[in-house]
Amino acid sequence: MLLPLSQLPELSPNRQAFPLIKEFISRSELLQVKVHEQKNGVTVIDCGVHVEGGWEAGILFSAVCLGGLAQVKLQWSEFDGLRWPSVEVVTDHTVRACMASQYAGWPIKIGKGLTMGSGPACAIVHKGSLFRMLGYEDHSETAIICLEGRDLPSEEMIEHILEECHCDPANLYILVAPTTSLVGSVQVAARALETGLFKLRRLGYDLGKVVSGWGICPIPPVAHDTLSGLGRTNDAIFYGSTVLYNLRDDDETLEHVVKQVPSCSTREYGRAYMETQSAYKNFFNLDPDQFTPAEVWLCNLNSGRSFQAGALRPDLLRRSFGLETNSCK
Amino acid sequence: MLLPLSQLPELSPNRQAFPLIKEFISRSELLQVKVHEQKNGVTVIDCGVHVEGGWEAGILFSAVCLGGLAQVKLQWSEFDGLRWPSVEVVTDHTVRACMASQYAGWPIKIGKGLTMGSGPACAIVHKGSLFRMLGYEDHSETAIICLEGRDLPSEEMIEHILEECHCDPANLYILVAPTTSLVGSVQVAARALETGLFKLRRLGYDLGKVVSGWGICPIPPVAHDTLSGLGRTNDAIFYGSTVLYNLRDDDETLEHVVKQVPSCSTREYGRAYMETQSAYKNFFNLDPDQFTPAEVWLCNLNSGRSFQAGALRPDLLRRSFGLETNSCK
Amino acid sequence: MLLPLSQLPELSPNRQAFPLIKEFISRSELLQVKVHEQKNGVTVIDCGVHVEGGWEAGILFSAVCLGGLAQVKLQWSEFDGLRWPSVEVVTDHTVRACMASQYAGWPIKIGKGLTMGSGPACAIVHKGSLFRMLGYEDHSETAIICLEGRDLPSEEMIEHILEECHCDPANLYILVAPTTSLVGSVQVAARALETGLFKLRRLGYDLGKVVSGWGICPIPPVAHDTLSGLGRTNDAIFYGSTVLYNLRDDDETLEHVVKQVPSCSTREYGRAYMETQSAYKNFFNLDPDQFTPAEVWLCNLNSGRSFQAGALRPDLLRRSFGLETNSCK
Repeated sequence: MLLPLSQLPELSPNRQAFPLIKEFISRSELLQVKVHEQKNGVTVIDCGVHVEGGWEAGILFSAVCLGGLAQVKLQWSEFDGLRWPSVEVVTDHTVRACMASQYAGWPIKIGKGLTMGSGPACAIVHKGSLFRMLGYEDHSETAIICLEGRDLPSEEMIEHILEECHCDPANLYILVAPTTSLVGSVQVAARALETGLFKLRRLGYDLGKVVSGWGICPIPPVAHDTLSGLGRTNDAIFYGSTVLYNLRDDDETLEHVVKQVPSCSTREYGRAYMETQSAYKNFFNLDPDQFTPAEVWLCNLNSGRSFQAGALRPDLLRRSFGLETNSCK
Repeated sequence: MLLPLSQLPELSPNRQAFPLIKEFISRSELLQVKVHEQKNGVTVIDCGVHVEGGWEAGILFSAVCLGGLAQVKLQWSEFDGLRWPSVEVVTDHTVRACMASQYAGWPIKIGKGLTMGSGPACAIVHKGSLFRMLGYEDHSETAIICLEGRDLPSEEMIEHILEECHCDPANLYILVAPTTSLVGSVQVAARALETGLFKLRRLGYDLGKVVSGWGICPIPPVAHDTLSGLGRTNDAIFYGSTVLYNLRDDDETLEHVVKQVPSCSTREYGRAYMETQSAYKNFFNLDPDQFTPAEVWLCNLNSGRSFQAGALRPDLLRRSFGLETNSCK
Repeated sequence: MLLPLSQLPELSPNRQAFPLIKEFISRSELLQVKVHEQKNGVTVIDCGVHVEGGWEAGILFSAVCLGGLAQVKLQWSEFDGLRWPSVEVVTDHTVRACMASQYAGWPIKIGKGLTMGSGPACAIVHKGSLFRMLGYEDHSETAIICLEGRDLPSEEMIEHILEECHCDPANLYILVAPTTSLVGSVQVAARALETGLFKLRRLGYDLGKVVSGWGICPIPPVAHDTLSGLGRTNDAIFYGSTVLYNLRDDDETLEHVVKQVPSCSTREYGRAYMETQSAYKNFFNLDPDQFTPAEVWLCNLNSGRSFQAGALRPDLLRRSFGLETNSCK
């Protein structure tokens, strides 16, 4: 179980992410984001709704989501035959960064709409069973929330978030990026490591055993519409990502668990997300197994043995990403 | 059309590159460069003429060329069977960084000699049709120019540059690196993204549609003489680079254009640069199509579809780079 | 021959590494290290003995070992069919960074125990023939030493190091990480470039001809016990690393030398380290040829030709690393 943050101020995701917020503000033109200070003092940073955003803003947005507790970087990489831009996430604070901060686990209901909040502020409001399990909360005066959406938050939503965070409006920062934006593509691909933890938890695995994590995922090209965007970002993780966890356990457990984690263990495997959509109709009703990495490594620090399962599917990535190639001549 | 910089001071290549100049000066021994202050106050930074330079200086030099508007980094990479050091350039300000700054489009004639100036100062002197098209100029008081050459600039050349830039001599910085130097190898390989834009423009394509760009190119080993050096750096791009642009257009146009961009669409394809040289004799008379990336991706933000053309040629890279391998035993 | 550091203060490994020490201290919780100030004022930084450490601490530890004269970074990479996390080291001061600082060439004997000291302080105590050859010493007031070991140093060992370094106790910093720790795995993998120089020197090659170097090596998963840990870290270099040196020499020499450098030129080739152990019993009695990179490139700046020898062996890496894979379904 993780120690409460009152004992580890250096590990507060809101405090660690705050310098990144200042970078968004001081370099807004370079990052192509727009900083809106609301009448009530809350700061909303548009990272792709009415502005272009970009890859660099995508890196920063991802790092904020991860509570400043992970290294995030871009690199051109090789996915079993497909050379494509990727994002890597390396963290020595995997559960804090991915589950207590990045995980989009805060349901924000305004009228009929539902938005899932992500980022450091989740560790302040700490709703739900996950935080009970983690025994974790962040007593930061600054609150930072990340939203995936096509619109800037309404006044009503801002008020709601403010109430939940119990913070001075001047200390609340809300970041927004649509799924179908450059920032959106990067920040979802940066969730591969998180989806592996999510799946492990669904399998009943004790996340307290996880020590550190490293993930790599192709960055999907920006889609035409939100539904395709959800499909692509999901497929990028489902068919293109590899995640590795260092953990302490016994080999029998890991040998058994590892096969249940990757996408090829699910019944959706082999179909692009958009094809499964036609059957399920609704993103939020989708089989939760859909959120899983393509390939997983569990490295046992107790025994020195490492267990792998899953495989990359560049063929399905090409289809989902809408990639069309021409041979020479 | 890009906004004039008076409205976007944060995007001035001369101002954005200035902190990098300060790094050259404060870390000159580590970077193995030599800073010469001229009698008239102009600063000349030798990055490989009478000094060694190095990879780190090469990264900085490239970042200066790009007006501080791009991320430049080194990584070992895979080029279709050839594992080799590479340089990556990622930018959310592709046309500004590559065309308004990095592009070597400023002809500096001194006596019979011709040198092509590159870097942020080009956005101050803004000569030629490119800048008319871009509608772009940088009103910076600091001017930074990058030269590819075997000699430090003469007093006459420095005076000429100073006049063109209309700046206080104390605010003019001239960087020089030979083609056949460690810095030269890196900074030319960092031009892959630029060559793709150059080719698009030659095809009559409207660069205003380009949103962001990402390029990767192998770093050629330093050649023995300047002509071989020009050959290798050119071949690195021509047979080893991949560039990707996000842009907004219609699919029909992109599908048509993409096939005309990569090196395999040119008549020189299949020959190392040094072989074509024997036919053309002169670098500056060379078919301008010679400056093109090996592989290109055009990712349409309007439609979500991506179009590729071209291919890497590790066989020709090995020949051009002078690589000789031994099998084990 | 390298100039003495009194003439090049910017290149002092102890001074260049000092900002990294400050980072260890100010970010100890994030890095999961523990800073112990001894009664006598010496600072011991535990990077994995009684604490977890982590990948980020591993990067910093490696950069300290290299005297702050190299870039160290993590990236997921491709090793001839094995995709695995790696560490890259790039340096324009190869011999200074790797031989005058990183090389574990300072034998510290306390009672019956022998520990090999590594890091910047070696350039202060400059014992042995290597430093005579390099003609190199660091007159820094700060001394930083890196130890690979399972225990924190005893008072006796600290006193011994202090005497050898002739420095104020408040200016001595001792870093410790076990072989079987996350930091240990990274910092040994970051020695690939050093092992290539070590081998060249054993072959009688004049290291003064080496200009710059770039290495990449897979990061072995943490082993169960120290002996396995030594085996894996060694095999990571022996079967997984590639190193490249720019140097100035004649082609005949390089063509001849290159074949003698890589692991496939040794009689141990083809066996995992643990298998050779059973024959040799003792790590320190092992054939010194065991410390060699898998693949080497020698790039001649004089001629422009590059010579390669060696090959990666992902099959042996998988065996040595204890990697167990499952196919899908």
